[in-house]
Amino acid sequence: MNDTVRFDSPCVLEPLRYRALDIDTWQEHVIYLHRDCAVCRAEGFRAQARVQVQVGARRLIATVNVVGSGVLGRAEAALSASASGALEARAGDLVYVTHAPGLESLRWVRAKVYGNELAGAQLDAIMQDVASGSYTGVPIAAFLAACAGGRMTERETIDLTRAMIGTGERLSWNRPVVADKHCVGGLPGNRTSPIVVAVAAAAGLLVPKTSSRAITSPAGTADTMAVLTRVDLDAATLRQVVEQAGASLAWGGALGLSPADDMLIQVERALDLDSDAQLVASILSKKVAAGSTHVLIDVPVGPTAKVREEADLERLRSLLTLAAQALGVRVRIVRTDGTQPVGRGIGPALEARDVLAVLQGAPSAPHDLRERSLMLAGELMEFCGACGAGEGAALAAALLAGGAAWTRFQAICEAQGGLRAPGRALFLRDVPAPRDGVVATIDNRRLARAARLAGAPERQVAGIDLHVRLGDTVRAGQPLLTLHAQASGELAYAGGFLAAHPAIVIGEAG
Amino acid sequence: MNDTVRFDSPCVLEPLRYRALDIDTWQEHVIYLHRDCAVCRAEGFRAQARVQVQVGARRLIATVNVVGSGVLGRAEAALSASASGALEARAGDLVYVTHAPGLESLRWVRAKVYGNELAGAQLDAIMQDVASGSYTGVPIAAFLAACAGGRMTERETIDLTRAMIGTGERLSWNRPVVADKHCVGGLPGNRTSPIVVAVAAAAGLLVPKTSSRAITSPAGTADTMAVLTRVDLDAATLRQVVEQAGASLAWGGALGLSPADDMLIQVERALDLDSDAQLVASILSKKVAAGSTHVLIDVPVGPTAKVREEADLERLRSLLTLAAQALGVRVRIVRTDGTQPVGRGIGPALEARDVLAVLQGAPSAPHDLRERSLMLAGELMEFCGACGAGEGAALAAALLAGGAAWTRFQAICEAQGGLRAPGRALFLRDVPAPRDGVVATIDNRRLARAARLAGAPERQVAGIDLHVRLGDTVRAGQPLLTLHAQASGELAYAGGFLAAHPAIVIGEAG
Repeated sequence: MNDTVRFDSPCVLEPLRYRALDIDTWQEHVIYLHRDCAVCRAEGFRAQARVQVQVGARRLIATVNVVGSGVLGRAEAALSASASGALEARAGDLVYVTHAPGLESLRWVRAKVYGNELAGAQLDAIMQDVASGSYTGVPIAAFLAACAGGRMTERETIDLTRAMIGTGERLSWNRPVVADKHCVGGLPGNRTSPIVVAVAAAAGLLVPKTSSRAITSPAGTADTMAVLTRVDLDAATLRQVVEQAGASLAWGGALGLSPADDMLIQVERALDLDSDAQLVASILSKKVAAGSTHVLIDVPVGPTAKVREEADLERLRSLLTLAAQALGVRVRIVRTDGTQPVGRGIGPALEARDVLAVLQGAPSAPHDLRERSLMLAGELMEFCGACGAGEGAALAAALLAGGAAWTRFQAICEAQGGLRAPGRALFLRDVPAPRDGVVATIDNRRLARAARLAGAPERQVAGIDLHVRLGDTVRAGQPLLTLHAQASGELAYAGGFLAAHPAIVIGEAG
Repeated sequence: MNDTVRFDSPCVLEPLRYRALDIDTWQEHVIYLHRDCAVCRAEGFRAQARVQVQVGARRLIATVNVVGSGVLGRAEAALSASASGALEARAGDLVYVTHAPGLESLRWVRAKVYGNELAGAQLDAIMQDVASGSYTGVPIAAFLAACAGGRMTERETIDLTRAMIGTGERLSWNRPVVADKHCVGGLPGNRTSPIVVAVAAAAGLLVPKTSSRAITSPAGTADTMAVLTRVDLDAATLRQVVEQAGASLAWGGALGLSPADDMLIQVERALDLDSDAQLVASILSKKVAAGSTHVLIDVPVGPTAKVREEADLERLRSLLTLAAQALGVRVRIVRTDGTQPVGRGIGPALEARDVLAVLQGAPSAPHDLRERSLMLAGELMEFCGACGAGEGAALAAALLAGGAAWTRFQAICEAQGGLRAPGRALFLRDVPAPRDGVVATIDNRRLARAARLAGAPERQVAGIDLHVRLGDTVRAGQPLLTLHAQASGELAYAGGFLAAHPAIVIGEAG
């Protein structure tokens, strides 16, 4: 043993110097280290090691990529765009790299995988580590899969919601009634929120609406609103907007209301996975954190919607109601038809076009989007006491027809940073009817997938314009829909998918 | 619509030129593209997009990282070390980048997450996509979590095993009895395989043993053997070794026997997750593919071993026996004591030292490792008919004491590429007994974790040298174990962990 060193105190290493390298890994934090740098040799870091990186007072957990002299010097460290942004690193800054602290909460993820029920403190620990960015996609995916398929108890769902709320900011409005509206999703083009919020705000309700970006769909309300105005508001700006316009239509992500959920949603999106417990925790954590008191929840039910059967609806209704009660917020669940898309456009810009048409009372406005929005606005106004029972539908119709809702919508967009017109795609392709007949079924999931393959929601103008509805009579060759894309490759990709997986089935004429 | 382009055929883009960039992301395939390159603009690729990359006749699925002009030119593409290695890319090669084909098999992963039973063809589809590298860690983690916790039926486990075998190569030996030995793991230092194989081969059995690297432990048999000789043999070399020495002690990974399992194991390791179904499928897929007819399986049982209770053992025994029968291979399960580590060393080089001591009959050889190896070798020889019932233990002892096993072990290592001596760590730290008393419990999991934090198995010389066994009387300050590390940071990390989570509990002297 005389050729070895007995070593009893941790060594203090010189920090590295930050060098900008301009590599975008999207949300994944990566640090690039030279394979022969002192910190790699002393700490034993290899590619894919998880490390703690500190620049100034900020720190985060990142994955190591090991590089050679052609990329970096031995005394340098580079960061992915996400990490350098979060750390506000500038060329020449000192970068301290140490082992990532052991993640004790992974024990509870494993316990859940093995089918155990988790206590509130265990879910708190998992959500805190998720929110701090200490988890990669792999343990998040294991946690989500372990919780899906009805494997969370009601108590766990409530505790998960509380744990998510605990990771973020909370807003309060000092008003007895703060109205909100949410759709569980699953129905392409179902963009009622901007219309419902404008109508309800025109009726005098306070509606500080924050929305998410798409999870598994081609657009979320925040994606659609981002076409029309600025949506990434901080808490102070959101408060100004709500004070000025009585309502907002903002993206929730910039507010940090439930940062753990924001991380989970990224992985749910990659897996195209959405379980009851995660759905309830995601909705209610954001609504409670946003200070809402009355939340109307639209649940479309149909064979290819997110909620497929009445039994699923009742399970979700019961879980939502129970959890809402435990968390001190009131919810009203409205069942809507989920057998086909709503409106014509699917994708941020195409949906924004439909929303504007309804608000402006254009003759071309999709009838179904208009009717559904008015119904939901009426329900919300009755639920919040803005009118008597049974009077909501008429009030909503009057506020829309008289222009009050459109005026209010413009005021909201102005307060958020100005109203813009939606753009249009460069590449279009019609998908024709293969035969004469009647539209028998429309597969929401295939339409959503095709719209995503066409580039939605990241490409605002991408998506689908739907020309038919269930029961329509069509002739062979007549366009059933038009694909919109910003890149020819994406158009070909979406077209190829629909050719292999038709979304619209034409039956015999009755 | 007159400012848009109707577009009906996929466009053919110029390929990019490969430029070596020397970034090591370990197993994750990454392609670096300039954010303004034609292929990004035309195909709409963004950071984290999954794409198909082709160089010459080889192709794989990779994740896009988007870079700026400081890193790459607009007409260039770079690849992570893993991707450039797999594609055999050289500077100037043409790189074709297209959208990754849609992964239909993700539907079946979701179905499993939602609790459905999967058919054989569905498991085949998942394993094929896993083996081809089309899955990232996220869907693999979801699949593993969905299958864990007893959520695979017996039929699914058998079908999963068949699906794994279907992804790889198969060996055949044209012999009626091909002996093999496996340990389910969970017990640090339990490195009996090299000894068992040497003894059984000395008795005339054919033992083409292939082992895995560590999953959640500080060393697998392949890690330990890699200290002593070359273990990454291709199928032709393995055959030569077995013909020459009657046995092998090789790493299975280079043989491509169950490439899907190799991918799953990486994610299991990151999650520290090992479920019954995955365990059975992993073991049997490799053994069937390796052409084994008789497999002895060592299952240590103890409160901190992988198998903790008799009920777990019986469940595993029943599942292993049933699946083996369905797959046409014979298994014998041997229950062993799993209450404490075996031998003294934990970690590749320290375990190799113990193995050599037993084979050479050194007075310092750990008694428990010797006895357990002889028992298992005896069982295997009886199981395979190399001796009569009840005669195995005496035969094994004779082969070891007479030097035949040591001679055979040297022959195996010589055939694989030569026998080397184990190295030694640079940094050592003793962990002393906190008080006078008797060793009451030893936590295998904490020891394993500390050895991993010290750098094992990637750093061969890292790990733990254990100085006490259950029931030993110790004095305060006497070393219970010594941590070995190749880097001071890793030593401090492992020491910090053991200070917070003691692995050895000293009780009152009886």
